[in-house]
Amino acid sequence: MHITFLFYQGMTALDVVGPHEILSRLPGARVHRVAKHSGPIPTDSQLFLMADESLSEISHTDVLLIPGSGSATTLKKEPEILEWVRRMHMTTLWTTSVCTGSLILGAAGILKDLRATTHWAAFERLEAYEAISTRGRYVIDGKVVTAAGVSAGIDMALFLSSKIAGPLFAQTIQLGIEYDPYPPYDAGSPEKANCAIRQSLFARMQAAFE
Amino acid sequence: MHITFLFYQGMTALDVVGPHEILSRLPGARVHRVAKHSGPIPTDSQLFLMADESLSEISHTDVLLIPGSGSATTLKKEPEILEWVRRMHMTTLWTTSVCTGSLILGAAGILKDLRATTHWAAFERLEAYEAISTRGRYVIDGKVVTAAGVSAGIDMALFLSSKIAGPLFAQTIQLGIEYDPYPPYDAGSPEKANCAIRQSLFARMQAAFE
Repeated sequence: MHITFLFYQGMTALDVVGPHEILSRLPGARVHRVAKHSGPIPTDSQLFLMADESLSEISHTDVLLIPGSGSATTLKKEPEILEWVRRMHMTTLWTTSVCTGSLILGAAGILKDLRATTHWAAFERLEAYEAISTRGRYVIDGKVVTAAGVSAGIDMALFLSSKIAGPLFAQTIQLGIEYDPYPPYDAGSPEKANCAIRQSLFARMQAAFE
Repeated sequence: MHITFLFYQGMTALDVVGPHEILSRLPGARVHRVAKHSGPIPTDSQLFLMADESLSEISHTDVLLIPGSGSATTLKKEPEILEWVRRMHMTTLWTTSVCTGSLILGAAGILKDLRATTHWAAFERLEAYEAISTRGRYVIDGKVVTAAGVSAGIDMALFLSSKIAGPLFAQTIQLGIEYDPYPPYDAGSPEKANCAIRQSLFARMQAAFE
């Protein structure tokens, strides 16, 4: 089971590391951390994550995961990455994204007529790619699974683990990472958040988006 | 506000990156990712995270965060790291840990007579350090805050954000990372998990612990 994480400059670290912590524990997982060029890749929080392989070294993967970015980039200036994503998607078992990673799938032409989600503040941008934008912690359409913002990748990865290795194994991983969430506030979705917080964050994120 | 993450070989990536995604967004945050020697540090899931600074470059920090490890190491073979942790703790505003990182705080002598928690499968090991072992998603005793296993660092970091920058700011970060958890199973604590899963995972983790 080859599981490949696409790394790129400015990606959000938790989009990668939440699912990585889970999917790398699957039985027989062969995990690939791949970027245009291997080496340390800067995230949007200054932390660097190491890409061990370059795109050209990966010709097939069973699971592909595309993280998002605080700038909601679609990698439009990186056509060779988009072409690689398109090529990988042809033979994946699961093509997945976290947060605004779905906009990259969209830009690669993969979301046309598919139900998909993304970070709540980027939701309307999905329509540019003819996706059927759908709210959900993660949204499944055939082999394409897209997660909502950042932390939603953890929930999506547990779902994928269940599909790949069965529900008991997924629950074992969940207990291993003690994922029994209990945040001090119940304010993590636009419906639950304070209105002023939601509006100011939305405005700030729109300004940051490419 | 200096916020310092201790990196070491074999640490759990999500223990670092969950809180890092949150605390690095605090206003005026100056984040330090520090290891015995700077450079790429291997985690227990093979992913390498980059440490930008060496221990000797950091003489004070306001917030210290110690991640755990799948091997539940106490860094007993690294006395200079434990000595550094002890020295940092003397002037922190908050000394914190995620998962079995609390065993490192314990080995540094910081948990004596303090209420503290850790990963559920390592819970009894806290007693070796004269801590008052206390179950909780995160446990606060004065300026020492210890989180439960792996993913609990996210909840703890939101609590710390609230203390440092106020509840509205913490909620803004929570909405930014869309932390509205909804895992496919409710099986992330030993009380909620299937008994056979809990027992087999406990046995496996005990065997892995140093």
